[in-house]
Parts: sequence; C-alpha cells; structure tokens
Amino acid sequence: MAPARFPELPAVAGVRLGATACGVRYPGRTDLCLMTFDPAASIAGVLTRSRTAAAPVDWCRARLPTGRVRAIVVNSGNANAFTGRAGWESVVRIAAKVAKVVGCAKEEVFVASTGVIGEPLPDQVITDSIAGLFETVTPKSWQPAAEAIMTTDLFPKGATRRAEIAGVPVTLNGIAKGSGMIAPDMATMLAFVVTDATLPGPILQSLLNRANERSFNAITVDGDTSTSDTVLLAATGEAVNPLVTHAADPRLKRFRTALEHLMIDLAQQVVRDGEGASKFVTITVTGAASARAARRIGLAVGGSPLVKTAIAGEDANWGRIVMAVGKAGEKADRDRLAIRIGGVTVADKGERVPGYDEAPVAAHMRGREIEIEVDVGVGRGRATVWTCDLTHGYITINADYRT
Amino acid sequence: MAPARFPELPAVAGVRLGATACGVRYPGRTDLCLMTFDPAASIAGVLTRSRTAAAPVDWCRARLPTGRVRAIVVNSGNANAFTGRAGWESVVRIAAKVAKVVGCAKEEVFVASTGVIGEPLPDQVITDSIAGLFETVTPKSWQPAAEAIMTTDLFPKGATRRAEIAGVPVTLNGIAKGSGMIAPDMATMLAFVVTDATLPGPILQSLLNRANERSFNAITVDGDTSTSDTVLLAATGEAVNPLVTHAADPRLKRFRTALEHLMIDLAQQVVRDGEGASKFVTITVTGAASARAARRIGLAVGGSPLVKTAIAGEDANWGRIVMAVGKAGEKADRDRLAIRIGGVTVADKGERVPGYDEAPVAAHMRGREIEIEVDVGVGRGRATVWTCDLTHGYITINADYRT
Repeated sequence: MAPARFPELPAVAGVRLGATACGVRYPGRTDLCLMTFDPAASIAGVLTRSRTAAAPVDWCRARLPTGRVRAIVVNSGNANAFTGRAGWESVVRIAAKVAKVVGCAKEEVFVASTGVIGEPLPDQVITDSIAGLFETVTPKSWQPAAEAIMTTDLFPKGATRRAEIAGVPVTLNGIAKGSGMIAPDMATMLAFVVTDATLPGPILQSLLNRANERSFNAITVDGDTSTSDTVLLAATGEAVNPLVTHAADPRLKRFRTALEHLMIDLAQQVVRDGEGASKFVTITVTGAASARAARRIGLAVGGSPLVKTAIAGEDANWGRIVMAVGKAGEKADRDRLAIRIGGVTVADKGERVPGYDEAPVAAHMRGREIEIEVDVGVGRGRATVWTCDLTHGYITINADYRT
Repeated sequence: MAPARFPELPAVAGVRLGATACGVRYPGRTDLCLMTFDPAASIAGVLTRSRTAAAPVDWCRARLPTGRVRAIVVNSGNANAFTGRAGWESVVRIAAKVAKVVGCAKEEVFVASTGVIGEPLPDQVITDSIAGLFETVTPKSWQPAAEAIMTTDLFPKGATRRAEIAGVPVTLNGIAKGSGMIAPDMATMLAFVVTDATLPGPILQSLLNRANERSFNAITVDGDTSTSDTVLLAATGEAVNPLVTHAADPRLKRFRTALEHLMIDLAQQVVRDGEGASKFVTITVTGAASARAARRIGLAVGGSPLVKTAIAGEDANWGRIVMAVGKAGEKADRDRLAIRIGGVTVADKGERVPGYDEAPVAAHMRGREIEIEVDVGVGRGRATVWTCDLTHGYITINADYRT
C-alpha cells in the first residue's frame, strides 16, 4: 500500500536538512537526520502521554515553552528510552554538540530518538557525526531525511502543501515515520512539519493541537503507545505574512486547512505502512454526542482485533462493529444504530436491514480500501479515523523475528 | 493448554441441570442448557458494560434487583444481540416458556445467549425443547451443561470448591464459556456459579463484585468486550448456615476465599482456551498507587499486542513491557521501575540491570507458563492478571474462517 514514490518536496525558506549513516545500530543505512533553522524560527510540539516516556521526550517537553528552535536532530535504531540517568546525559551531550556546530544555545536544539527500548544509546557515534553532517545540509534533502528516521517502516513518508496567509504564499513540508506501536494519545510516531510562515510559538501550538486531533490522534495500528511519540511543527518566519495574534484569525483559514490536510496525509501514510497491513480502512462515525465521542467510538472500532481480523478475512462482520461501538464507553443508542459498509446500508435502527444482500458488501471487502460508516443515533458529533487490518503479517513481524 | 479432563463436580443441593441439542445453529451438538433452582434460591449478577448489550443482558439487568431465581436458560450459537424489538420478544417468550414448565414467574427466569451477533434468534426451536429438557435435569449434569454453552471454546470449563460458613459445610460449583472477545469490564464471557449456602441477594452481590474484580475482570485475551457478558451467582439456601447480614462478616471468610478461587480457576481456564493461545501468562504488578491502578497496569501489559506477540515469539522483550506500563495511564515512576521475568530481575531502577544475562530468561520464555512481575515504584497497590500470547492461531481463527 506504499505510495508510488516519495513526493517532490520544495525548499522551505530558512530550513536546511541532511542525513548520514553514523552507525547507531543498522549496518548499511542512514540513521541520523539534522534539520537546521534560521534564527527567527518558532516551534510547537505534541509529545507522547506515556508515563514511561523516553529521555528525548523529557528534553523536548522542557524546551517547548520557549517556542524557539535552531535545530532538530533525530536518530533511528535506538529510542534512548528506559535508559536512566545515562540516557538523559546522552541527550544533553547530543544537544550541546549540535548547538556548538550550529552556533546556538543547546536549549534551541530538539532531540528525538526511535528504535529499541532499554539499550544504552551509543551517543558518541552521533556526536562524532554532527559536524560532518552539518556541512552537508541542503534545502532539498527531504527524502534522505525521511529515510534516516525509518525503523520498521517499509517506505519513507513525506507530504507538502501550499497555502496563503492574508495573500502571502507559504509552504508546508512534513516527514514522518511509524508503522507499529501506533495508537493515539498521541501519534505514536515521529513527525516533523516545517513552514516558512511567520507565526509565534503559542499560535503554532494551537494550530498543531487542533490538526493533531484530526490526524495523528485519529489513527491506530495496534493500540500500543510508544515511549517516544513526537510531533514538532516549526515556522521559520521567512514569509512576510502579517502577524496574526490568535489561532482562530480568519486569515489563517487556508493555513489551518493545509496543515490539517498535510498531517492527515502523513498519518494515513503511517497507517498504509502499518505492520502487516493489507487493507486501508476509513471509519466515519456520525450521530455521536460530540466529535470527541465520535473519535473514541471510531478508534474502538478501528482498534478492535476482532474487527481488524474480520477485515483481513474480507468478512463484512458487522456484528463485530456493533460489539466495538458498545465497548467504546461513549453514548450510543443501540436501537438507532446504523452501519454502512462500502456505501451499502447493512444495519439500520438497531437491526440488520430487511432483505440484506451481502453480495455488494462482500465485493467491497475484497478491495484494498475499506469504508465503514457508523451512525450511533444520539447527537451530531462526527469524526473520521483510519486504521488497517490485522493479519498474519503483523504476527510474523512482531513474533517471528527471532526464528 | 486444556486441563487433562473436566473436574468432578458434586451435586449442589437445590440445583438440577441438563442440556440438549435444539438446533439453533450447530449441527450435531448440544446448544441449550437449563438450570433449575428450588424456591428459596437467591441470585446476584455482573453484566457487560457494553453500550450495545444484547437483549438477554437487558432482561437479566431488569430482573437482578429482585434477587430471586428459579431457572437459568442459556443457548449457544446465537447471541440474540442487535436484534431489535424481535430480540427482546424472543427473550420474553423463552422466559415465559421456562416459567410455565418449571412452575414459577417469568421474572424468576434468567436468560443468556452467546454466538453470532445480528442474526434473528430462532427462539421457537428453544421454546419447543424446554419441556423435554426439563424432564432430563439432574443434580450432576455439570459437564453436559458446560459443553452446551460453548461456542469457539475448545474445552468445557468447570470448577468446584468446598467451604464452610460458621462451621456449616457448603459447596460451590461453576461453569463458564469464553475464548475470544475476552477483556475486562467485565468478564466478556458467560459464567454460572451456584452454591447451597444460605445468603440473601444483596450479600451475594457484594461477594460476587469483589471476586469478579480479581477473576473475570483480571483477564484479557484480545481486549474486545462482548455484548453478552454475564456472570450469575445463585445460592439455593439448602445449607443451614446461620444468616449473615453483611458481606464482610468474618464467618464468610472461607466462603469468600473459595468463591474467589473458584472464579479465578474458571477465568484462568478461559485464558488457557484463548483463541490461538500457546502460552499462559501471569502478570503481577506491585508498587502501584492502588490495587485498581495495579490491575489497570497489568491489563495494559497483558493486553498489549506487542507484548503478546513478543511472548509468542519467545522473546524476553522487556522494552515492550515498559512501553505498555507507560500507556496504562496510571502513575508509574519510570526511574524506579523494576521488571522480573521468570523470577530473574531484568530491569531495576529504570534501567537494564548491569551484566544482564539473557540466558535463563530466554529459557523461561520457551516454556508454556510465563511469569512477569513489574514494580512501578510509587505505592503499595498490587494485582495479578492473566493473559495469553497473540499468535498466528488467533489470526487464523478470526480472519481465515471463510477461506
């Protein structure tokens, strides 16, 4: 389900990036990515809610309130998670080294790591590579950057959008990684989005929170939450758009839409790369008490092993959808519930429709793109979430890797 | 992982039961179970928290406050869930028929159904069989009853315990079914426990709630919650123990223990029959903020697809355990976390132990009984939960049944 190719990402004024193979873990591939920003850049972020978050997440959480960024450094191969005081010291050394090379304060350096948990991070191979890597950064190295942050991903993930703020054109680029340990609260992956727009940190944070709810918090692969989830949004301020003072400013409408679409694009790529996935599933919930309730119901359906295995088996098992709606814990009126699969109404008013013909639904289930709609009959809340099926491939990837 | 054989269950004074093949769905097997109680019997129950509960669950919920029971009737093959008004009318007809045959009010008849969701229940094949079935009930037909309520179960589940209340001997018997769609809140299965003790309904309910938390609410197979979960506890009052007036009465100590052990026995049998299970996993969480927090952390570990696939792959992947502790949402001190696998300390004070030798842990992982202990370092709460691994067998059972 990979896209045909990595999209063409344009330069974003004020951003340079590059990648190298420093040798954290994987032989013969890149594993270190550096993004640098001109001095005006602001930043916002959303981080994992895990109670056992990795050291780099602690670092980013402490740095975000300043809203300032000059560099983001990311390694794959080792998550630097559950590594105690040594792990924290590794982050500090990496940030200090990047700061020295880039010429900024270490507090302006954001750090992310992804890979195995519980192994000490060999940070010296990283710090030894920073100076050389910095000499190679360019405005166009998006694909190498996206490749360097991959772990079990089968393809690099990138997206770009254009928008305008009060008539001034701006660009948004993003890269992401993730294919397992994917569940909301939050994205359970890494994503880095940059724009040349001029936007202060607090506004950027509001925009990011809203878009994140509808993108990375609306996907699930396996319901597991990583210790390292990090989504960062940086704005270089190179575009000379007028300064807006609140996130709801109507002049930001197109920017908000572009950001949301870009993040949904990246989130969907994560699902399409879901471990073992053979089908991409879109679940739209309507009639819920609120958008939040709709999203929770959608994620209960999309997260249910019984629903996901039924989809893998190409079975329009709508009884399992009913079960999953019920377990979400949100208000649902069993006797007004309606379910459509592939646009065909399967159940309505809490029962299978009279004369239900399974043939067109069965044909839809044999496709790669599955559409499920559920109306829970209590209100006007709606949300769309995305997931993949649960296959033998998932088990093979996660259980059989030793054999 | 099935027990060598169904245990020998003694008669319980005041209870008769039997099973028959009425033809709801499965050819060539029994699918209807009837239990009858002498007039003094009291009853308590715990029912699914699903928002899309089946019609029989609605019926039982309405009946429980009276605390009176004369019969329990259970069919397999069809859950009578998401069947609208017709489903409710089926329950009423079944209860009325049983009441007529047994000679009681229909409000004293409890009904449970398990099987496919969303198919109309052919209740007439059930009502037509009740009179004949009633003629065959005996005090000893526990195994036939346990077999008649099976769906995807590979073996019938039964357990028995003896206890005493103020020196008066009492017996407890139980049967259960369940192997998939198993997650707490609550048991996601059917279980029927009976005793000859004399215990009023409200006390019975308190005893059941407490034992249920430590048994059926402490297991998970796939994290899915059924529309039909039902645990009923009936007491016939044939034993002439002195009347106790509250559940905490010290004279009930042995009864409480016996009930808890019996329900844990049944719950463990459900896990051992977990769809595709090849390993039985015991997870003990200590150092949590409360027993409830410990149970939630244990269930997050036991419910994690990444932990469960690692166990299937015989990999002591304790990094995934850290991840799952983090996602539970309960207080945990990452830097005081300790993990033991098979009695060997793998991680302590938030890091892998120095000189960690994987060999004895790897040997433990190759066994059928896996022991995981996690101390989260914040308090004195503790709990034990049980789960199984997640294997290709689970996918085969739930995805490949059409091919």
